[in-house]
Amino acid sequence: MSQIEIVEVGPRDGLQSEPDVLATSIKLELIERLIAAGVRRVEVASFVNPKRVPQMADAEAVLAGLPRRSDVQYVGLVLNRKGFDRAQAAGCTEIGMVTAATDSFAQRNQGASTEETVRAWEEIAPLAHAAGIRAQITISVAFGCPFEGEVPMDRVVALATRLSQAAPVELAIADTIGVAVPTQVTELVGRIRQAVPGLPLRCHFHNTRNTAVANAYAAVSAGVRTLDSSVGGIGGCPFAPNATGNVATEDLVYMLSRAGFDTGIDLNKLIGVGHWLQEQRGRPLPSMVSRAGGFPKSIS
Amino acid sequence: MSQIEIVEVGPRDGLQSEPDVLATSIKLELIERLIAAGVRRVEVASFVNPKRVPQMADAEAVLAGLPRRSDVQYVGLVLNRKGFDRAQAAGCTEIGMVTAATDSFAQRNQGASTEETVRAWEEIAPLAHAAGIRAQITISVAFGCPFEGEVPMDRVVALATRLSQAAPVELAIADTIGVAVPTQVTELVGRIRQAVPGLPLRCHFHNTRNTAVANAYAAVSAGVRTLDSSVGGIGGCPFAPNATGNVATEDLVYMLSRAGFDTGIDLNKLIGVGHWLQEQRGRPLPSMVSRAGGFPKSIS
Repeated sequence: MSQIEIVEVGPRDGLQSEPDVLATSIKLELIERLIAAGVRRVEVASFVNPKRVPQMADAEAVLAGLPRRSDVQYVGLVLNRKGFDRAQAAGCTEIGMVTAATDSFAQRNQGASTEETVRAWEEIAPLAHAAGIRAQITISVAFGCPFEGEVPMDRVVALATRLSQAAPVELAIADTIGVAVPTQVTELVGRIRQAVPGLPLRCHFHNTRNTAVANAYAAVSAGVRTLDSSVGGIGGCPFAPNATGNVATEDLVYMLSRAGFDTGIDLNKLIGVGHWLQEQRGRPLPSMVSRAGGFPKSIS
Repeated sequence: MSQIEIVEVGPRDGLQSEPDVLATSIKLELIERLIAAGVRRVEVASFVNPKRVPQMADAEAVLAGLPRRSDVQYVGLVLNRKGFDRAQAAGCTEIGMVTAATDSFAQRNQGASTEETVRAWEEIAPLAHAAGIRAQITISVAFGCPFEGEVPMDRVVALATRLSQAAPVELAIADTIGVAVPTQVTELVGRIRQAVPGLPLRCHFHNTRNTAVANAYAAVSAGVRTLDSSVGGIGGCPFAPNATGNVATEDLVYMLSRAGFDTGIDLNKLIGVGHWLQEQRGRPLPSMVSRAGGFPKSIS
């Protein structure tokens, strides 16, 4: 049975989009519940300017409050040197950086051109390597941009090739606004694998247009072994406020486990975490498996 | 570019689950709007006992009110001889019958065993052929049953083989409760194609666990060229009341057209139909493409 690793991004990518700032204790409880359900890699905080992202202002406190476990990676989002220094001091075992396939999106999202974000990666990746911290990077809007529309695949492949030179533990391609379809995933994954053989790939899908599970299946079929997702499907894209955001971990785990893949996650426990989070948030979250439940057991 | 035919089931399978009975005029307007968006095959009514399904009591009036078009198939659901006689008299150009992969579901849904529903098909299919009416049949709960749990694939293949002997224009396999995953779709479609070469297959997916678009893509990849869906994603399964039902036509058309398939449907017009239906119903419908819109155009 093939192993698929889930990177749970709810505590960072998900909660960052919530209208109110969650208490550190709730974040810690969420992460601990996720670990108890079998999650082994969690994006836990963002080391960015707390004035721009007040929901993540407690990044250091979150890291300080987490149980130290050799079998769990705590990922901190980092955009620049200052963020890296904070993440390192806080004890992150892995940093995730971000670039974008278009300048328009990079400027809006990170206040920098694509070239500038790539240079930040090229500066910081060696520092992380020297410090024994895993470092990876995500190409956002890899399948389409809210400002520029179609994104040429050649550009994404070239960007992936350049990023790979600073030796990421993994490169992620993100469908940040949920426009991708499976054929594109198959093609882009294939082209990057051809351009940079041996580079581990991760995929990050949003379910904005109901294609995320299909895209995840296409990615896995193309050999990708790591997927991002968010418990409950919490999180959204600030540029598409009515749209569902990250694919729900419950929905991915349901599909993958019925399809014969092993994520190491207990679906029933995970559904419980989603229900708990839903109670904390006081509203239904987008996960459909959370509502419907897993596969019905025979009652006959 | 491969053609994919969409059978729009909203006016029957969708509206049947609505709590109130819609006016015939609204149904007619819905169907005419769908045709204007490019739909060419529509499940328009159900010829069943109006006491059991009051939403479909106006089946004859719907058929009488529709424009006669040689390029559009109007499908009527039929479960028995009486229903067939009504559908024929009303002028349906196609009838759809239903059986189930489990007796428990057949009894609950149709008040008959699987064997009895198969015999009804074997009685009625020749009558339809003689009358020049297209006849097809759906195997419901083909991927899992709410009462019996797992459904052995051998049983579905054997059922498909038997049903094919009465020469359906097409056989449909339905994931009535939305439990299927793409690997199962690939396998079941492949096995039926092997058992009954040349039999056109249709797939009917529910998005209850967020897998419908993935399953549709798997079906199309396995050679299926006809898919059921419902505008707005209207409709549900009476046995899973909190769960989203039929996959939304908008969501399928978005994925298929971005993946290079031609459905003949204009996505923007279709989204307009969904918005109109949403206003009629006074609540948001499940289609995600309806909310998010199609692929963003470049603004640069």
